[in-house]
Amino acid sequence: MPIPLLNCDVGESFGAWKIGRDADVMAYIDCANIACGFHAGDPDVMRRTVGLAVANNVAIGAHPGYPDLVGFGRRSLAVSPSEAENLLLYQIGALDGVCRAEGSRVRYIKPHGALYNDMAVNSPAGQDLLRATMRAVRAYDASLPLLVMSTADTDDVRALAAEEGVSLWFEVFADRAYDQQGRLVSRREPGAVHHDESTIVAQAVTLAKGEPLAARDGTPLQLPADTLCVHGDNESSVAAVRAIREAFGRLEEA
Amino acid sequence: MPIPLLNCDVGESFGAWKIGRDADVMAYIDCANIACGFHAGDPDVMRRTVGLAVANNVAIGAHPGYPDLVGFGRRSLAVSPSEAENLLLYQIGALDGVCRAEGSRVRYIKPHGALYNDMAVNSPAGQDLLRATMRAVRAYDASLPLLVMSTADTDDVRALAAEEGVSLWFEVFADRAYDQQGRLVSRREPGAVHHDESTIVAQAVTLAKGEPLAARDGTPLQLPADTLCVHGDNESSVAAVRAIREAFGRLEEA
Amino acid sequence: MPIPLLNCDVGESFGAWKIGRDADVMAYIDCANIACGFHAGDPDVMRRTVGLAVANNVAIGAHPGYPDLVGFGRRSLAVSPSEAENLLLYQIGALDGVCRAEGSRVRYIKPHGALYNDMAVNSPAGQDLLRATMRAVRAYDASLPLLVMSTADTDDVRALAAEEGVSLWFEVFADRAYDQQGRLVSRREPGAVHHDESTIVAQAVTLAKGEPLAARDGTPLQLPADTLCVHGDNESSVAAVRAIREAFGRLEEA
Amino acid sequence: MPIPLLNCDVGESFGAWKIGRDADVMAYIDCANIACGFHAGDPDVMRRTVGLAVANNVAIGAHPGYPDLVGFGRRSLAVSPSEAENLLLYQIGALDGVCRAEGSRVRYIKPHGALYNDMAVNSPAGQDLLRATMRAVRAYDASLPLLVMSTADTDDVRALAAEEGVSLWFEVFADRAYDQQGRLVSRREPGAVHHDESTIVAQAVTLAKGEPLAARDGTPLQLPADTLCVHGDNESSVAAVRAIREAFGRLEEA
Repeated sequence: MPIPLLNCDVGESFGAWKIGRDADVMAYIDCANIACGFHAGDPDVMRRTVGLAVANNVAIGAHPGYPDLVGFGRRSLAVSPSEAENLLLYQIGALDGVCRAEGSRVRYIKPHGALYNDMAVNSPAGQDLLRATMRAVRAYDASLPLLVMSTADTDDVRALAAEEGVSLWFEVFADRAYDQQGRLVSRREPGAVHHDESTIVAQAVTLAKGEPLAARDGTPLQLPADTLCVHGDNESSVAAVRAIREAFGRLEEA
Repeated sequence: MPIPLLNCDVGESFGAWKIGRDADVMAYIDCANIACGFHAGDPDVMRRTVGLAVANNVAIGAHPGYPDLVGFGRRSLAVSPSEAENLLLYQIGALDGVCRAEGSRVRYIKPHGALYNDMAVNSPAGQDLLRATMRAVRAYDASLPLLVMSTADTDDVRALAAEEGVSLWFEVFADRAYDQQGRLVSRREPGAVHHDESTIVAQAVTLAKGEPLAARDGTPLQLPADTLCVHGDNESSVAAVRAIREAFGRLEEA
Repeated sequence: MPIPLLNCDVGESFGAWKIGRDADVMAYIDCANIACGFHAGDPDVMRRTVGLAVANNVAIGAHPGYPDLVGFGRRSLAVSPSEAENLLLYQIGALDGVCRAEGSRVRYIKPHGALYNDMAVNSPAGQDLLRATMRAVRAYDASLPLLVMSTADTDDVRALAAEEGVSLWFEVFADRAYDQQGRLVSRREPGAVHHDESTIVAQAVTLAKGEPLAARDGTPLQLPADTLCVHGDNESSVAAVRAIREAFGRLEEA
Repeated sequence: MPIPLLNCDVGESFGAWKIGRDADVMAYIDCANIACGFHAGDPDVMRRTVGLAVANNVAIGAHPGYPDLVGFGRRSLAVSPSEAENLLLYQIGALDGVCRAEGSRVRYIKPHGALYNDMAVNSPAGQDLLRATMRAVRAYDASLPLLVMSTADTDDVRALAAEEGVSLWFEVFADRAYDQQGRLVSRREPGAVHHDESTIVAQAVTLAKGEPLAARDGTPLQLPADTLCVHGDNESSVAAVRAIREAFGRLEEA
């Protein structure tokens, strides 16, 4: 079982405004999810971030979001499936255009924020959005993997992906508690987010080894883990990424 | 001497707002300059317009502009050369992403409005902007031609293009008066714009034959004419495009 | 019982894009709901529309919407109550600022599109949004009426308005079918929208007289009707407004 | 001669992005120039910033800019005078709307960035923009002062203000070098910006006392100084504001 790739949201600055320690975290990650201008990022920020990823030999992923800059793409917006498909194509292409100037290309797709969450909802609207996303990825380049949230039961999403002709990377989190369905516990609930570095590293290692993770109620969860989401917002989150990278290094040597 | 290709700005609707008779004019043109979302167009409008171009076998060009939706990209914005380069890469890529979903690709680049005019100004700032535009085109795909305004003396722009490694298409206008340098007479001056269809068709034919065009003061102008800009705003402009297409058909038969 | 005021959405153009026959419909209406730049309208469009309203002696209402220009404010956006309150204050103030240059002021508030619909939903989220809207109106100027959708049972909304210290205008529609709760039948259902002018005028007159309106299933509905929403999108809708105005004129004479 | 009021740009955050130490600097200033959403700020940031100003008993000024969020309003945009007038009215009104919810109102107007600079240019276009700005202020509320850049010769701007019926506050800078016309030395030139706190405080005191300031070439400048611009970007600029405030306190006691 391969070690999960470390992916991190970067390029989330905008104009004069800075967010994130992109230059610091790039040293420890495999995959850079770069914002595409709709919820964060602008052409100049994208160019700098792509350059940074290239310099660090980090794979570039498109990180498209809802067109809601002031809300940072974190608020659900009732787009139709065809609107979703088109805004994904637009943003993926835009980042890919910027990549060309740095001798690189987009390698995978990870929807952002509310868009990512809305397409993970087990409802007709959620399924329509997920299907629209898959269609955008396939139309853009069917060889690019789409990151989706890992859960305890991934049969349906695998079947949908096979039907739509796209490949998936299942994403797990080291700093979040899971419920018994293998879904993230809402941030509004106590204990939803782990802040202690050793807890985070331990969960990352459990997931990397393919061992069952304990859900909040103790249920053992078997979560597919192609990639692990890490954060570069501040000093302590970058330190946690470094610690995960070091722990993964020890796993690989073992 | 080949007949100039007819190019037309299309895809200039936005959200609920409609502009232009795209479906009508597509029947008569060779090249569709499609707005890329910064001054007009949105992902859905772009998708529809690309589909229309494909259905009519019309080549798709990126028509990137300044980020000024309310001003329709017609107001100069003091961007730096690197900002210009990046906003061009972003917009070209975005349209190209949408094209993929319709089985097509961007075939050429024509900057829009104030951006197009600003890069044609014979000043250090104009030259910097032109060079930045060329760099964006080369970085995106050096095989894509860049449309620039034709003038009586194109040596400098040809030299710059050779230096930057891009190819040019010189663009002429059938409905505009030219001054003795082969530059467009400002719209603010009387007689700057031809409204009579027969005058427009006659100027188009003169340019297509490679015959000298009379500047406003009578000076004979020899203008390179790879492509002719036409308009699809309203019924009479579409009629003029049709008349030009028919006149060009007679030239080709002759 | 007073004749309902005729209100109409106007000022929905944006930059180079035009929507609506504002100049035509102004002759027949009492109240102009002017878009405030978030879903439609821009400072120049607002200025021209305010000038037109003043010239026609039409009361000016703020018509604030979600920040979703490309979606024309018709897509629900998951804003928090405090975000809703602040974006309402911003937009009302912006229009009022423009009004001052034409010697007028905002006289009432009518939320637009998805915002209007979302605050009419009978759910905790809908109630929170409605309360936030009332707080914005009260904070801006407690003497300005807030337009809300009329239904068969307005006790709850009246109680909430009393609690929050704002006054209400109940709005009815002449071109829409109602269900037995006095709510608008969804546009997706057949027969939801009346297109025939005589049907529209008849429904307007029934509502103006205070007579019960037949719901789709025949239930008689008693709908409070302070104001009637009319449309100026095209020639036939303007003609319908004129016909309603004439019918109301006959009522007033009677 | 009254001590100049200390004014500072605040409320320049946007959505998830933070800029400035607003809470820190509020303790030392008299006047808060609050961004109005076009170049920075959003309704929620504006609400919080207004609340902070009210809590600190600081006068609120509208700080309207060009509609260029990604450029932070620092890039010239070729707006017409009527476009300038309307975008000023819109932004002033928007902030005033938000102020009402905190029991306050806009007390003065200071245009931002490129707009502020463009209206200070001694050219026909600059004069047209300045006049348009004055018209917006007068239309909004003729009692609100307009901040303009102080120079060695303010006769023309005073005459224009008298003609247009607005009052002026002349603004000076403690951290910028002046040329012999009393204009700011361009930031691109060496020595244009003072970084040393004691130099900044000394220049502030000279200006406050009404004593002549030495231009870069030694020319003594008599600059009207109703208000002094200070900065709250970082720790050292806030420390400089505190030092100026303390120096002004000693002047007042003397």
